[in-house]
Amino acid sequence: MKAHWHSIAIVGVGLIGGSVGKALKARRLADRIIGVGRSAASLDEARRHGVVTETTRDLAAAVAAAELVVVTAGVAAIPELLEEIDAAVEPGTLITDAGSTKATIVAAWERKRRSRRGRFVGAHPLAGSHRRGPAAADDGLFAGRVAIVTPATRTPAADVEDVGSFWAALGATVFVMPPKEHDRILAFTSHAPHLIAAAVAAATPPALGRFTAGGWRDTTRIAAGDPELWADIILDNPGPVADALRRVAGAAEKMLAAIEAGDRRRLATLLLRAKEVRDAVGS
Amino acid sequence: MKAHWHSIAIVGVGLIGGSVGKALKARRLADRIIGVGRSAASLDEARRHGVVTETTRDLAAAVAAAELVVVTAGVAAIPELLEEIDAAVEPGTLITDAGSTKATIVAAWERKRRSRRGRFVGAHPLAGSHRRGPAAADDGLFAGRVAIVTPATRTPAADVEDVGSFWAALGATVFVMPPKEHDRILAFTSHAPHLIAAAVAAATPPALGRFTAGGWRDTTRIAAGDPELWADIILDNPGPVADALRRVAGAAEKMLAAIEAGDRRRLATLLLRAKEVRDAVGS
Repeated sequence: MKAHWHSIAIVGVGLIGGSVGKALKARRLADRIIGVGRSAASLDEARRHGVVTETTRDLAAAVAAAELVVVTAGVAAIPELLEEIDAAVEPGTLITDAGSTKATIVAAWERKRRSRRGRFVGAHPLAGSHRRGPAAADDGLFAGRVAIVTPATRTPAADVEDVGSFWAALGATVFVMPPKEHDRILAFTSHAPHLIAAAVAAATPPALGRFTAGGWRDTTRIAAGDPELWADIILDNPGPVADALRRVAGAAEKMLAAIEAGDRRRLATLLLRAKEVRDAVGS
Repeated sequence: MKAHWHSIAIVGVGLIGGSVGKALKARRLADRIIGVGRSAASLDEARRHGVVTETTRDLAAAVAAAELVVVTAGVAAIPELLEEIDAAVEPGTLITDAGSTKATIVAAWERKRRSRRGRFVGAHPLAGSHRRGPAAADDGLFAGRVAIVTPATRTPAADVEDVGSFWAALGATVFVMPPKEHDRILAFTSHAPHLIAAAVAAATPPALGRFTAGGWRDTTRIAAGDPELWADIILDNPGPVADALRRVAGAAEKMLAAIEAGDRRRLATLLLRAKEVRDAVGS
Protein backbone atom coordinates (compact mmCIF):
# COMPACT_ATOMS: atom_id res chain seq x y z
CA MET A 1 0.00 0.00 0.00
CA LYS A 2 1.46 3.24 -1.20
CA ALA A 3 1.32 6.08 1.31
CA HIS A 4 2.94 8.88 -0.65
CA TRP A 5 3.11 10.04 -4.25
CA HIS A 6 5.59 12.39 -5.80
CA SER A 7 3.15 13.95 -8.24
CA ILE A 8 -0.56 13.54 -8.90
CA ALA A 9 -2.46 15.15 -11.76
CA ILE A 10 -6.15 15.91 -11.15
CA VAL A 11 -8.03 16.38 -14.40
CA GLY A 12 -11.02 18.59 -13.56
CA VAL A 13 -10.87 20.83 -10.51
CA GLY A 14 -14.54 21.06 -9.50
CA LEU A 15 -16.08 19.83 -6.27
CA ILE A 16 -14.68 16.29 -6.52
CA GLY A 17 -11.31 17.13 -8.05
CA GLY A 18 -10.88 20.02 -5.64
CA SER A 19 -11.76 17.79 -2.70
CA VAL A 20 -9.25 15.17 -3.86
CA GLY A 21 -6.61 17.92 -4.01
CA LYS A 22 -7.47 19.33 -0.60
CA ALA A 23 -7.52 15.87 0.98
CA LEU A 24 -4.11 15.07 -0.54
CA LYS A 25 -2.74 18.33 0.84
CA ALA A 26 -4.30 17.91 4.29
CA ARG A 27 -2.95 14.37 4.56
CA ARG A 28 0.43 15.27 3.01
CA LEU A 29 0.07 12.46 0.51
CA ALA A 30 1.73 14.11 -2.49
CA ASP A 31 4.49 16.63 -3.16
CA ARG A 32 3.00 18.00 -6.37
CA ILE A 33 -0.73 18.19 -6.98
CA ILE A 34 -1.29 19.43 -10.52
CA GLY A 35 -4.79 20.69 -11.28
CA VAL A 36 -5.69 20.43 -14.97
CA GLY A 37 -8.64 22.39 -16.34
CA ARG A 38 -9.93 23.75 -19.60
CA SER A 39 -10.68 27.32 -18.57
CA ALA A 40 -8.34 29.85 -17.02
CA ALA A 41 -11.20 31.00 -14.80
CA SER A 42 -11.74 27.60 -13.20
CA LEU A 43 -8.00 27.19 -12.64
CA ASP A 44 -7.85 30.65 -11.06
CA GLU A 45 -10.64 29.62 -8.75
CA ALA A 46 -8.87 26.36 -7.88
CA ARG A 47 -5.71 28.28 -7.01
CA ARG A 48 -7.64 30.85 -5.02
CA HIS A 49 -9.16 28.07 -2.90
CA GLY A 50 -5.80 26.33 -2.56
CA VAL A 51 -7.07 22.96 -3.70
CA VAL A 52 -3.91 22.05 -5.65
CA THR A 53 -0.23 23.05 -5.59
CA GLU A 54 -0.13 24.10 -9.25
CA THR A 55 -2.45 24.38 -12.25
CA THR A 56 -2.17 24.05 -16.00
CA ARG A 57 -4.30 23.84 -19.12
CA ASP A 58 -1.73 21.53 -20.71
CA LEU A 59 -3.19 18.09 -20.11
CA ALA A 60 -0.43 16.17 -21.88
CA ALA A 61 2.40 17.87 -19.97
CA ALA A 62 0.61 17.49 -16.64
CA VAL A 63 -0.11 13.79 -16.96
CA ALA A 64 3.36 13.10 -18.42
CA ALA A 65 4.78 14.48 -15.18
CA ALA A 66 2.42 12.50 -12.93
CA GLU A 67 2.79 9.18 -11.15
CA LEU A 68 -0.97 9.01 -10.76
CA VAL A 69 -3.75 10.68 -12.75
CA VAL A 70 -7.21 11.21 -11.25
CA VAL A 71 -9.97 12.10 -13.74
CA THR A 72 -12.88 13.94 -12.15
CA ALA A 73 -14.72 15.18 -15.22
CA GLY A 74 -18.37 14.43 -16.05
CA VAL A 75 -18.96 10.85 -17.21
CA ALA A 76 -19.60 11.75 -20.85
CA ALA A 77 -16.17 13.36 -21.15
CA ILE A 78 -14.16 10.64 -19.44
CA PRO A 79 -13.64 8.07 -22.27
CA GLU A 80 -12.15 10.68 -24.58
CA LEU A 81 -10.06 12.20 -21.79
CA LEU A 82 -8.67 8.74 -21.03
CA GLU A 83 -7.52 8.47 -24.65
CA GLU A 84 -5.73 11.81 -24.44
CA ILE A 85 -4.22 10.95 -21.09
CA ASP A 86 -3.07 7.51 -22.16
CA ALA A 87 -1.34 8.96 -25.19
CA ALA A 88 0.72 11.27 -22.96
CA VAL A 89 1.54 9.38 -19.75
CA GLU A 90 4.77 7.56 -19.02
CA PRO A 91 4.26 3.79 -19.41
CA GLY A 92 2.92 2.24 -16.21
CA THR A 93 1.30 5.43 -14.88
CA LEU A 94 -1.66 4.67 -12.66
CA ILE A 95 -4.96 6.28 -13.75
CA THR A 96 -8.30 6.34 -11.97
CA ASP A 97 -11.49 8.34 -12.23
CA ALA A 98 -14.45 9.38 -10.11
CA GLY A 99 -17.26 9.02 -12.62
CA SER A 100 -20.76 8.21 -11.41
CA THR A 101 -21.21 5.38 -13.93
CA LYS A 102 -18.61 2.77 -14.69
CA ALA A 103 -19.59 0.22 -17.36
CA THR A 104 -19.15 2.46 -20.42
CA ILE A 105 -15.98 4.08 -19.14
CA VAL A 106 -14.30 0.81 -18.25
CA ALA A 107 -15.41 -0.88 -21.48
CA ALA A 108 -14.00 2.01 -23.53
CA TRP A 109 -10.63 1.62 -21.82
CA GLU A 110 -10.65 -2.15 -22.15
CA ARG A 111 -11.25 -2.14 -25.90
CA LYS A 112 -7.64 -1.08 -26.37
CA ARG A 113 -6.14 -2.70 -23.28
CA ARG A 114 -3.29 -4.37 -25.21
CA SER A 115 -1.96 -1.07 -26.53
CA ARG A 116 -2.38 0.97 -23.33
CA ARG A 117 0.54 2.85 -21.77
CA GLY A 118 -1.22 3.61 -18.48
CA ARG A 119 -2.84 1.34 -15.92
CA PHE A 120 -6.45 2.47 -15.57
CA VAL A 121 -8.84 1.23 -12.90
CA GLY A 122 -12.22 2.96 -12.70
CA ALA A 123 -13.56 4.13 -9.36
CA HIS A 124 -16.46 6.03 -7.85
CA PRO A 125 -16.24 7.70 -4.48
CA LEU A 126 -19.80 7.86 -3.08
CA ALA A 127 -19.51 11.41 -1.90
CA GLY A 128 -20.63 14.62 -3.39
CA SER A 129 -22.96 17.49 -3.03
CA HIS A 130 -25.52 19.44 -4.98
CA ARG A 131 -22.93 22.24 -4.74
CA ARG A 132 -20.32 22.69 -7.43
CA GLY A 133 -16.83 23.98 -8.02
CA PRO A 134 -13.60 24.18 -6.03
CA ALA A 135 -15.20 26.69 -3.63
CA ALA A 136 -17.27 23.78 -2.29
CA ALA A 137 -14.26 21.44 -2.06
CA ASP A 138 -13.82 19.73 1.29
CA ASP A 139 -10.72 17.87 2.45
CA GLY A 140 -12.93 15.50 4.42
CA LEU A 141 -15.34 14.69 1.58
CA PHE A 142 -14.18 11.08 1.27
CA ALA A 143 -13.43 10.34 4.92
CA GLY A 144 -15.64 7.57 6.22
CA ARG A 145 -17.40 7.27 2.85
CA VAL A 146 -17.40 4.38 0.43
CA ALA A 147 -15.31 4.33 -2.75
CA ILE A 148 -16.17 1.61 -5.24
CA VAL A 149 -13.31 0.36 -7.41
CA THR A 150 -14.47 -1.37 -10.60
CA PRO A 151 -11.83 -3.48 -12.35
CA ALA A 152 -12.49 -5.17 -15.66
CA THR A 153 -12.00 -8.93 -15.76
CA ARG A 154 -8.50 -8.45 -17.23
CA THR A 155 -7.36 -5.73 -14.80
CA PRO A 156 -4.25 -6.93 -12.91
CA ALA A 157 -4.84 -7.39 -9.18
CA ALA A 158 -1.87 -5.12 -8.44
CA ASP A 159 -3.55 -2.24 -10.28
CA VAL A 160 -6.75 -2.76 -8.33
CA GLU A 161 -4.72 -2.73 -5.14
CA ASP A 162 -2.89 0.45 -6.10
CA VAL A 163 -6.05 2.36 -7.02
CA GLY A 164 -7.83 1.05 -3.93
CA SER A 165 -4.92 2.26 -1.80
CA PHE A 166 -5.24 5.73 -3.30
CA TRP A 167 -8.92 6.09 -2.40
CA ALA A 168 -8.31 4.49 0.99
CA ALA A 169 -5.56 7.02 1.64
CA LEU A 170 -8.19 9.78 1.25
CA GLY A 171 -10.16 8.13 4.05
CA ALA A 172 -12.64 6.06 2.02
CA THR A 173 -13.68 2.48 2.68
CA VAL A 174 -12.98 0.65 -0.57
CA PHE A 175 -15.29 -1.92 -2.15
CA VAL A 176 -14.35 -3.76 -5.32
CA MET A 177 -16.97 -4.97 -7.79
CA PRO A 178 -17.51 -5.29 -11.55
CA PRO A 179 -18.55 -2.08 -13.37
CA LYS A 180 -22.00 -3.39 -14.27
CA GLU A 181 -22.70 -4.35 -10.68
CA HIS A 182 -21.71 -0.83 -9.65
CA ASP A 183 -24.10 0.67 -12.18
CA ARG A 184 -26.96 -1.60 -11.14
CA ILE A 185 -26.50 -0.63 -7.48
CA LEU A 186 -26.10 3.09 -8.14
CA ALA A 187 -29.31 3.10 -10.16
CA PHE A 188 -31.08 2.36 -6.85
CA THR A 189 -28.98 4.43 -4.49
CA SER A 190 -28.32 7.49 -6.63
CA HIS A 191 -29.64 7.72 -10.18
CA ALA A 192 -33.31 6.87 -9.61
CA PRO A 193 -33.47 8.94 -6.39
CA HIS A 194 -32.08 11.85 -8.38
CA LEU A 195 -34.86 11.56 -10.96
CA ILE A 196 -37.49 11.14 -8.26
CA ALA A 197 -36.25 14.23 -6.45
CA ALA A 198 -36.45 16.11 -9.74
CA ALA A 199 -39.96 14.77 -10.39
CA VAL A 200 -41.16 15.96 -6.95
CA ALA A 201 -39.70 19.41 -7.62
CA ALA A 202 -41.11 19.55 -11.16
CA ALA A 203 -44.57 18.49 -9.92
CA THR A 204 -44.72 21.28 -7.34
CA PRO A 205 -46.49 24.40 -8.60
CA PRO A 206 -43.80 27.09 -8.28
CA ALA A 207 -46.16 29.44 -6.41
CA LEU A 208 -46.27 26.93 -3.56
CA GLY A 209 -42.55 27.15 -2.87
CA ARG A 210 -43.11 29.36 0.16
CA PHE A 211 -45.25 26.65 1.73
CA THR A 212 -42.47 24.07 1.78
CA ALA A 213 -40.64 22.97 4.90
CA GLY A 214 -37.76 20.64 5.70
CA GLY A 215 -39.43 17.55 4.23
CA TRP A 216 -39.86 18.92 0.71
CA ARG A 217 -36.49 20.62 0.87
CA ASP A 218 -34.65 17.44 1.86
CA THR A 219 -36.57 15.30 -0.62
CA THR A 220 -35.83 17.60 -3.55
CA ARG A 221 -32.35 18.85 -2.61
CA ILE A 222 -30.43 16.90 -5.25
CA ALA A 223 -32.75 18.22 -7.94
CA ALA A 224 -30.55 21.33 -7.76
CA GLY A 225 -27.72 19.30 -9.30
CA ASP A 226 -26.38 20.10 -12.77
CA PRO A 227 -28.95 18.95 -15.38
CA GLU A 228 -26.33 18.33 -18.08
CA LEU A 229 -24.07 16.20 -15.89
CA TRP A 230 -27.04 14.23 -14.59
CA ALA A 231 -28.55 13.69 -18.03
CA ASP A 232 -25.23 12.12 -19.05
CA ILE A 233 -25.06 9.92 -15.95
CA ILE A 234 -28.61 8.65 -16.34
CA LEU A 235 -28.38 8.06 -20.08
CA ASP A 236 -25.22 6.07 -19.50
CA ASN A 237 -27.19 3.65 -17.26
CA PRO A 238 -30.70 3.56 -18.77
CA GLY A 239 -31.71 -0.04 -18.14
CA PRO A 240 -30.90 -0.23 -14.43
CA VAL A 241 -32.30 3.29 -13.90
CA ALA A 242 -35.58 2.35 -15.57
CA ASP A 243 -35.77 -0.81 -13.43
CA ALA A 244 -35.15 1.14 -10.24
CA LEU A 245 -37.68 3.83 -11.22
CA ARG A 246 -40.30 1.15 -11.83
CA ARG A 247 -39.61 -0.34 -8.43
CA VAL A 248 -40.12 3.08 -6.81
CA ALA A 249 -43.31 3.52 -8.82
CA GLY A 250 -44.47 0.11 -7.61
CA ALA A 251 -43.86 1.07 -3.98
CA ALA A 252 -45.73 4.36 -4.49
CA GLU A 253 -48.64 2.55 -6.17
CA LYS A 254 -49.01 0.22 -3.20
CA MET A 255 -49.26 3.27 -0.95
CA LEU A 256 -51.74 4.94 -3.28
CA ALA A 257 -53.88 1.79 -3.29
CA ALA A 258 -53.91 1.79 0.51
CA ILE A 259 -54.87 5.48 0.52
CA GLU A 260 -57.68 4.97 -1.98
CA ALA A 261 -58.96 2.00 0.03
CA GLY A 262 -58.73 4.06 3.22
CA ASP A 263 -56.69 1.15 4.64
CA ARG A 264 -54.86 2.76 7.52
CA ARG A 265 -53.22 -0.42 8.77
CA ARG A 266 -51.85 -1.22 5.32
CA LEU A 267 -50.53 2.32 4.77
CA ALA A 268 -48.87 2.41 8.20
CA THR A 269 -47.25 -0.97 7.48
CA LEU A 270 -45.85 0.26 4.16
CA LEU A 271 -44.52 3.41 5.82
CA LEU A 272 -42.99 1.34 8.61
CA ARG A 273 -41.13 -0.87 6.11
CA ALA A 274 -39.76 2.24 4.42
CA LYS A 275 -38.74 3.68 7.79
CA GLU A 276 -36.87 0.47 8.62
CA VAL A 277 -34.81 0.71 5.43
CA ARG A 278 -34.14 4.40 6.08
CA ASP A 279 -33.29 3.96 9.76
CA ALA A 280 -30.81 1.18 8.93
CA VAL A 281 -28.78 3.62 6.82
CA GLY A 282 -28.49 6.38 9.40
CA SER A 283 -28.33 10.12 8.95
CA MET B 1 -51.49 42.20 18.77
CA LYS B 2 -50.94 40.49 22.07
CA ALA B 3 -47.31 40.30 23.17
CA HIS B 4 -47.63 38.49 26.49
CA TRP B 5 -49.83 35.79 28.00
CA HIS B 6 -50.30 34.98 31.63
CA SER B 7 -50.72 31.25 31.12
CA ILE B 8 -50.57 28.98 28.10
CA ALA B 9 -51.39 25.27 28.11
CA ILE B 10 -49.58 23.10 25.55
CA VAL B 11 -51.37 19.82 24.97
CA GLY B 12 -48.73 17.36 23.80
CA VAL B 13 -45.09 17.99 24.66
CA GLY B 14 -43.28 16.36 21.74
CA LEU B 15 -41.09 18.09 19.18
CA ILE B 16 -43.65 20.74 18.22
CA GLY B 17 -45.19 21.29 21.66
CA GLY B 18 -41.75 21.34 23.25
CA SER B 19 -40.52 23.83 20.66
CA VAL B 20 -43.55 26.06 21.30
CA GLY B 21 -42.74 25.94 25.00
CA LYS B 22 -39.05 26.68 24.54
CA ALA B 23 -39.79 29.54 22.13
CA LEU B 24 -42.28 31.03 24.61
CA LYS B 25 -39.66 30.82 27.36
CA ALA B 26 -36.83 32.20 25.24
CA ARG B 27 -38.97 35.12 24.12
CA ARG B 28 -40.49 35.62 27.61
CA LEU B 29 -43.97 35.53 26.16
CA ALA B 30 -45.77 33.77 29.00
CA ASP B 31 -45.54 33.53 32.79
CA ARG B 32 -46.90 29.99 33.05
CA ILE B 33 -46.34 27.39 30.34
CA ILE B 34 -48.26 24.27 31.32
CA GLY B 35 -47.27 21.09 29.48
CA VAL B 36 -50.08 18.54 29.34
CA GLY B 37 -49.32 14.92 28.44
CA ARG B 38 -50.74 11.47 28.87
CA SER B 39 -47.70 9.66 30.22
CA ALA B 40 -45.64 10.49 33.27
CA ALA B 41 -42.52 9.53 31.29
CA SER B 42 -43.09 12.07 28.52
CA LEU B 43 -43.82 14.80 31.09
CA ASP B 44 -40.63 13.88 32.98
CA GLU B 45 -38.73 14.22 29.73
CA ALA B 46 -40.35 17.60 29.02
CA ARG B 47 -39.36 18.85 32.46
CA ARG B 48 -35.85 17.48 32.10
CA HIS B 49 -35.41 19.43 28.87
CA GLY B 50 -36.96 22.54 30.39
CA VAL B 51 -39.49 23.03 27.60
CA VAL B 52 -42.32 24.19 29.92
CA THR B 53 -42.60 25.76 33.36
CA GLU B 54 -44.88 23.04 34.77
CA THR B 55 -46.48 19.78 33.68
CA THR B 56 -49.66 17.91 34.43
CA ARG B 57 -51.70 14.94 33.21
CA ASP B 58 -54.91 16.78 34.19
CA LEU B 59 -56.03 18.23 30.87
CA ALA B 60 -59.20 19.84 32.24
CA ALA B 61 -57.42 21.64 35.07
CA ALA B 62 -54.61 22.81 32.82
CA VAL B 63 -56.81 24.29 30.13
CA ALA B 64 -59.18 25.81 32.71
CA ALA B 65 -56.22 27.77 34.04
CA ALA B 66 -55.02 28.87 30.57
CA GLU B 67 -55.64 32.01 28.55
CA LEU B 68 -54.50 30.17 25.43
CA VAL B 69 -54.42 26.45 24.62
CA VAL B 70 -52.09 25.06 21.93
CA VAL B 71 -52.85 21.51 20.80
CA THR B 72 -49.83 19.74 19.29
CA ALA B 73 -51.08 16.16 19.19
CA GLY B 74 -51.27 14.00 16.05
CA VAL B 75 -54.05 14.99 13.67
CA ALA B 76 -56.23 11.96 14.40
CA ALA B 77 -56.37 12.82 18.10
CA ILE B 78 -57.11 16.53 17.73
CA PRO B 79 -60.91 16.59 17.15
CA GLU B 80 -61.59 14.61 20.33
CA LEU B 81 -59.05 16.62 22.31
CA LEU B 82 -60.77 19.81 21.21
CA GLU B 83 -64.04 18.46 22.62
CA GLU B 84 -62.41 17.75 25.99
CA ILE B 85 -60.65 21.07 26.00
CA ASP B 86 -63.74 23.05 25.07
CA ALA B 87 -65.69 21.41 27.87
CA ALA B 88 -63.14 22.61 30.42
CA VAL B 89 -61.93 26.06 29.32
CA GLU B 90 -63.18 29.37 30.62
CA PRO B 91 -65.53 30.96 28.08
CA GLY B 92 -63.60 32.99 25.51
CA THR B 93 -60.34 31.05 25.88
CA LEU B 94 -58.30 31.10 22.68
CA ILE B 95 -57.43 27.66 21.25
CA THR B 96 -55.18 26.76 18.35
CA ASP B 97 -53.44 23.65 17.08
CA ALA B 98 -50.45 22.63 14.97
CA GLY B 99 -51.96 19.73 13.04
CA SER B 100 -50.61 18.90 9.58
CA THR B 101 -54.09 18.72 8.04
CA LYS B 102 -56.82 21.24 8.67
CA ALA B 103 -60.12 20.54 6.90
CA THR B 104 -61.33 17.71 9.16
CA ILE B 105 -60.18 19.37 12.36
CA VAL B 106 -61.78 22.72 11.56
CA ALA B 107 -65.00 21.10 10.31
CA ALA B 108 -65.29 19.06 13.52
CA TRP B 109 -65.00 22.22 15.59
CA GLU B 110 -67.41 24.16 13.40
CA ARG B 111 -70.19 21.58 13.64
CA LYS B 112 -70.84 22.75 17.20
CA ARG B 113 -69.73 26.37 16.83
CA ARG B 114 -72.87 27.78 18.43
CA SER B 115 -72.34 25.92 21.68
CA ARG B 116 -68.57 26.43 21.95
CA ARG B 117 -67.01 27.96 25.04
CA GLY B 118 -63.56 28.49 23.50
CA ARG B 119 -62.47 30.36 20.42
CA PHE B 120 -60.66 27.87 18.17
CA VAL B 121 -58.71 28.79 15.06
CA GLY B 122 -56.72 26.00 13.40
CA ALA B 123 -53.12 26.54 12.41
CA HIS B 124 -50.15 24.70 10.98
CA PRO B 125 -46.58 25.89 11.50
CA LEU B 126 -44.54 24.59 8.55
CA ALA B 127 -41.65 23.44 10.65
CA GLY B 128 -40.71 20.10 11.97
CA SER B 129 -38.22 17.35 11.78
CA HIS B 130 -37.99 13.62 11.33
CA ARG B 131 -36.83 13.68 14.98
CA ARG B 132 -39.32 13.34 17.79
CA GLY B 133 -39.88 14.26 21.40
CA PRO B 134 -39.00 17.19 23.66
CA ALA B 135 -35.30 16.29 23.45
CA ALA B 136 -35.41 17.54 19.84
CA ALA B 137 -37.33 20.72 20.77
CA ASP B 138 -35.80 23.92 19.44
CA ASP B 139 -36.72 27.44 20.55
CA GLY B 140 -36.00 28.69 17.03
CA LEU B 141 -38.07 26.06 15.21
CA PHE B 142 -40.67 28.58 14.02
CA ALA B 143 -38.43 31.59 13.47
CA GLY B 144 -38.46 32.66 9.84
CA ARG B 145 -40.82 29.82 8.94
CA VAL B 146 -44.38 30.02 7.69
CA ALA B 147 -47.40 29.37 9.89
CA ILE B 148 -50.71 28.93 8.08
CA VAL B 149 -53.82 29.98 10.00
CA THR B 150 -57.01 28.38 8.68
CA PRO B 151 -60.22 30.05 9.81
CA ALA B 152 -63.63 28.66 8.92
CA THR B 153 -66.00 30.98 7.10
CA ARG B 154 -67.72 31.86 10.40
CA THR B 155 -64.54 32.42 12.44
CA PRO B 156 -64.51 36.00 13.81
CA ALA B 157 -61.72 38.15 12.37
CA ALA B 158 -60.56 39.01 15.90
CA ASP B 159 -59.96 35.34 16.65
CA VAL B 160 -57.92 34.94 13.44
CA GLU B 161 -55.93 38.00 14.45
CA ASP B 162 -55.30 36.67 17.96
CA VAL B 163 -54.15 33.23 16.78
CA GLY B 164 -52.05 34.79 14.03
CA SER B 165 -50.41 37.03 16.62
CA PHE B 166 -49.51 34.01 18.71
CA TRP B 167 -47.69 32.23 15.87
CA ALA B 168 -46.10 35.50 14.76
CA ALA B 169 -44.83 36.03 18.30
CA LEU B 170 -42.90 32.74 17.95
CA GLY B 171 -41.18 34.20 14.89
CA ALA B 172 -43.34 32.75 12.12
CA THR B 173 -44.59 34.56 9.03
CA VAL B 174 -48.35 34.08 9.14
CA PHE B 175 -50.51 33.26 6.11
CA VAL B 176 -54.28 32.96 6.34
CA MET B 177 -56.26 30.66 4.06
CA PRO B 178 -59.25 28.30 4.15
CA PRO B 179 -58.59 24.81 5.58
CA LYS B 180 -59.20 23.02 2.27
CA GLU B 181 -56.79 25.30 0.48
CA HIS B 182 -54.19 24.50 3.13
CA ASP B 183 -54.71 20.77 2.65
CA ARG B 184 -54.51 21.03 -1.12
CA ILE B 185 -51.21 22.92 -0.89
CA LEU B 186 -49.67 20.67 1.73
CA ALA B 187 -50.47 17.61 -0.37
CA PHE B 188 -47.88 18.98 -2.82
CA THR B 189 -45.36 20.42 -0.42
CA SER B 190 -45.42 17.81 2.33
CA HIS B 191 -47.74 14.80 2.11
CA ALA B 192 -46.90 13.51 -1.38
CA PRO B 193 -43.16 14.17 -0.89
CA HIS B 194 -43.36 12.14 2.31
CA LEU B 195 -44.87 9.18 0.45
CA ILE B 196 -42.35 9.50 -2.37
CA ALA B 197 -39.46 9.56 0.09
CA ALA B 198 -40.92 6.43 1.68
CA ALA B 199 -41.33 4.79 -1.74
CA VAL B 200 -37.68 5.46 -2.62
CA ALA B 201 -36.57 3.96 0.70
CA ALA B 202 -38.91 0.98 0.35
CA ALA B 203 -37.71 0.32 -3.20
CA THR B 204 -34.05 0.20 -2.16
CA PRO B 205 -32.81 -3.33 -1.45
CA PRO B 206 -31.67 -3.10 2.20
CA ALA B 207 -28.29 -4.67 1.40
CA LEU B 208 -27.49 -1.63 -0.74
CA GLY B 209 -27.74 0.80 2.18
CA ARG B 210 -23.96 1.01 2.47
CA PHE B 211 -23.76 2.25 -1.12
CA THR B 212 -25.88 5.33 -0.50
CA ALA B 213 -24.53 8.85 -0.29
CA GLY B 214 -25.94 12.29 0.41
CA GLY B 215 -28.44 12.20 -2.45
CA TRP B 216 -30.30 9.10 -1.31
CA ARG B 217 -30.04 10.17 2.31
CA ASP B 218 -31.54 13.60 1.67
CA THR B 219 -34.21 12.24 -0.63
CA THR B 220 -35.38 9.63 1.87
CA ARG B 221 -34.78 11.48 5.14
CA ILE B 222 -38.43 12.11 6.01
CA ALA B 223 -39.21 8.42 5.48
CA ALA B 224 -37.83 8.05 9.02
CA GLY B 225 -40.89 9.88 10.33
CA ASP B 226 -43.46 8.16 12.51
CA PRO B 227 -45.53 5.78 10.31
CA GLU B 228 -48.63 6.02 12.51
CA LEU B 229 -48.71 9.82 12.61
CA TRP B 230 -48.10 10.01 8.86
CA ALA B 231 -50.71 7.40 8.01
CA ASP B 232 -53.22 9.58 9.87
CA ILE B 233 -52.12 12.76 8.11
CA ILE B 234 -52.29 11.21 4.66
CA LEU B 235 -55.60 9.44 5.19
CA ASP B 236 -57.06 12.74 6.36
CA ASN B 237 -56.21 14.29 2.97
CA PRO B 238 -56.58 11.44 0.47
CA GLY B 239 -57.91 13.26 -2.60
CA PRO B 240 -55.31 16.04 -2.78
CA VAL B 241 -52.55 13.57 -1.89
CA ALA B 242 -53.58 11.22 -4.69
CA ASP B 243 -53.68 14.17 -7.12
CA ALA B 244 -50.21 15.31 -6.09
CA LEU B 245 -48.83 11.77 -6.31
CA ARG B 246 -50.20 11.41 -9.82
CA ARG B 247 -48.56 14.66 -10.79
CA VAL B 248 -45.21 13.42 -9.48
CA ALA B 249 -45.74 10.14 -11.35
CA GLY B 250 -46.47 12.12 -14.51
CA ALA B 251 -43.23 14.08 -14.14
CA ALA B 252 -41.29 10.85 -13.56
CA GLU B 253 -42.92 9.20 -16.57
CA LYS B 254 -41.84 12.07 -18.81
CA MET B 255 -38.27 11.55 -17.62
CA LEU B 256 -38.53 7.79 -18.13
CA ALA B 257 -39.82 8.32 -21.68
CA ALA B 258 -36.84 10.56 -22.43
CA ILE B 259 -34.48 7.93 -20.98
CA GLU B 260 -36.03 5.13 -23.00
CA ALA B 261 -35.86 7.25 -26.15
CA GLY B 262 -32.24 8.13 -25.36
CA ASP B 263 -33.31 11.77 -25.76
CA ARG B 264 -30.58 13.62 -23.92
CA ARG B 265 -31.82 17.11 -24.77
CA ARG B 266 -35.31 16.31 -23.52
CA LEU B 267 -34.04 14.75 -20.28
CA ALA B 268 -31.71 17.68 -19.60
CA THR B 269 -34.61 20.10 -20.20
CA LEU B 270 -36.85 18.23 -17.74
CA LEU B 271 -34.06 18.20 -15.14
CA LEU B 272 -33.45 21.90 -15.72
CA ARG B 273 -37.13 22.73 -15.09
CA ALA B 274 -36.99 20.77 -11.84
CA LYS B 275 -33.80 22.54 -10.85
CA GLU B 276 -35.45 25.91 -11.46
CA VAL B 277 -38.31 25.06 -9.08
CA ARG B 278 -35.85 23.76 -6.49
CA ASP B 279 -33.44 26.68 -6.79
CA ALA B 280 -36.28 29.18 -6.34
CA VAL B 281 -37.03 27.72 -2.91
CA GLY B 282 -33.50 27.87 -1.54
CA SER B 283 -31.73 25.57 0.89
